[in-house]
Amino acid sequence: MSNQDQNLAATVNTTQGSYRVIVGRDVIDDLGTELQKTGLKGRAFLVVDEVMFPNPSRRAQEALERGGYETHVLALEIGEANKNLETVQIVYDWLADLLADRSDIVVAMGGGVTGDLVGFAAATWLRGVAVVHVPTSLAAMVDSSIGGKTGVNIPKGKNLLGAFHQPKLVLQDVGHLKSLPAREMSAGWAEAVKHGFILDAQLLDTFERLAPQMKALAGEEPVAAIRRSVAIKGEIVSADEFETGDHRVLLNYGHTIGHAIEKVSGYGTYLHGEAVAIGMMAAAGIAERLGMIDEELVDRQRRVLENYDLPVRASGLDVDALIEATKSDKKSRGGTIRWVLLEGPGKATTRRDVPEEVVREAVLAILD
Amino acid sequence: MSNQDQNLAATVNTTQGSYRVIVGRDVIDDLGTELQKTGLKGRAFLVVDEVMFPNPSRRAQEALERGGYETHVLALEIGEANKNLETVQIVYDWLADLLADRSDIVVAMGGGVTGDLVGFAAATWLRGVAVVHVPTSLAAMVDSSIGGKTGVNIPKGKNLLGAFHQPKLVLQDVGHLKSLPAREMSAGWAEAVKHGFILDAQLLDTFERLAPQMKALAGEEPVAAIRRSVAIKGEIVSADEFETGDHRVLLNYGHTIGHAIEKVSGYGTYLHGEAVAIGMMAAAGIAERLGMIDEELVDRQRRVLENYDLPVRASGLDVDALIEATKSDKKSRGGTIRWVLLEGPGKATTRRDVPEEVVREAVLAILD
Repeated sequence: MSNQDQNLAATVNTTQGSYRVIVGRDVIDDLGTELQKTGLKGRAFLVVDEVMFPNPSRRAQEALERGGYETHVLALEIGEANKNLETVQIVYDWLADLLADRSDIVVAMGGGVTGDLVGFAAATWLRGVAVVHVPTSLAAMVDSSIGGKTGVNIPKGKNLLGAFHQPKLVLQDVGHLKSLPAREMSAGWAEAVKHGFILDAQLLDTFERLAPQMKALAGEEPVAAIRRSVAIKGEIVSADEFETGDHRVLLNYGHTIGHAIEKVSGYGTYLHGEAVAIGMMAAAGIAERLGMIDEELVDRQRRVLENYDLPVRASGLDVDALIEATKSDKKSRGGTIRWVLLEGPGKATTRRDVPEEVVREAVLAILD
Repeated sequence: MSNQDQNLAATVNTTQGSYRVIVGRDVIDDLGTELQKTGLKGRAFLVVDEVMFPNPSRRAQEALERGGYETHVLALEIGEANKNLETVQIVYDWLADLLADRSDIVVAMGGGVTGDLVGFAAATWLRGVAVVHVPTSLAAMVDSSIGGKTGVNIPKGKNLLGAFHQPKLVLQDVGHLKSLPAREMSAGWAEAVKHGFILDAQLLDTFERLAPQMKALAGEEPVAAIRRSVAIKGEIVSADEFETGDHRVLLNYGHTIGHAIEKVSGYGTYLHGEAVAIGMMAAAGIAERLGMIDEELVDRQRRVLENYDLPVRASGLDVDALIEATKSDKKSRGGTIRWVLLEGPGKATTRRDVPEEVVREAVLAILD
């Protein structure tokens, strides 16, 4: 058993209730006891990405059983290619066969796609049953597992379906990252480093100073940095649950161009975090051109991203196609794009008055 | 234009915001102005049951346009038989083709199935967009359009999918009832009369005294009675939004046996309200056998229901099959059924300690 108090990274407060985010090594063994603390008493329906099956999902199952929970396990091949209603229906059928009722609990164990898809199934089963997230990728840990966003693709677009469905508990075992491919680790660091750039200069310093140690997941510093990234995300969600205010949108730093890059390059060319890293460079270029930040901060951002083995330029993409794609981004309203831009290290704001010419120059500057 | 203040039947307060329920004659012409009051400014995506198309849906569309809303209309054949994800996907595709975004508004116009299905689509499009309900059946008016419940069937069960997604406005034009088949009108009265029996002795008196006038929709009394039924539903939803307390469950009076009758007889034999009427008689029989009410109230309930042309007995059904079906009802938790029972006219409570033998006797007494 780990030191549970020390492992509490955040308590997220939402209209659907408050929940704890636990981050640490070997915390998977606490899953049952942490779930007990939520007061939930139903059966646990564990849906795992099949790469986690039978281990380490068995360890999660054993922890649930030690907590007194009857468990059922469904292992699924889950990826961007089958993040659709057909896969959700496999989960529905399984829940129906086992007569899962409103007192039961769905536990999603896997990367971001698993959380999005299983979270959607839980949000829509019997008008919403409890969901617990056990994210096993770095990107899901520091970003998508917190905040209740769920999502499913339809042929006409990515993540067009979804619901806000807050979890009852998020439990992140850093040990799960040991088997994550290096490229996916880097993509996860992109989101964590982003948190530093937009909101926490001290966290940014840590990421800058300790890149080798972070990447090796050596010692306590990486765990503390993940915990701090989680806390930032939790604070933002608590302040702006539905992204209707000015807070949660800041997390989209690098995402306007990032999404455009993913779309224009064809999904799958870049990992999401990689596209965000390039998008952060384009956004920094916009801020520099608008006189909001100096060249030094742009260079610093490039250096930090490169130290985490992230791309900072894209090749083979057409500037006009990218700019067109930014306009259909979901953050665009009534024709104007809400850009998230840096004002300094650890400080971001939003601007709607960015001339397209400035965007074009900044995008051209990150294209080969 | 109608007198808008007089037409306000309820203001429902929920965690997703407050909304007004407007009930009156010709209020459909106020749809645009009422929508303006919500502050919503997007395009209006009107999904109508094709029996409402092109009239009276055109009148709704014109009202929206007078309110300054750009409108799009999708007419669908919607019924219990296609209340499934395939039909929801038709709505999704339409929204995708028209690039419906988070500022846009979905308007559902039709009976209960339309509200359930279109409400589900709105709840899950881009993590939830605004929905307005324009119920056109009596059952949808007094019951399902208020409270945010949405639902979709899967092959393994009815309403297993759903979400709580509160509307921004509910607008009920009593004039739409003129073309409703008599049997469906009666089924709607069952839910309204039920509100009287469980919560409002005065409303019950009105329904008892004025049955012919109610059924003819003559004069202002029927409109006032619908408005009062709506108010009762709105108060209960405001007090117990997620049916986690002791309030909202009262609305399930007659539903435990009613659902069993629907299931055992094969869906489609009885309308939902008809099955509820028979279920109310079984529940009254249970309460009488437990000494909670006297025979006089049971007889009174029978007489009132018969005056609204509702069945009070069922034939050709097996008592064991019915009792078995009550056990799989979604209101059953941990094996014990939570019965909603009368204590007097306008007064209901819940009981978990009803012996199966008492249920069996009461069910046998309503079977031919």
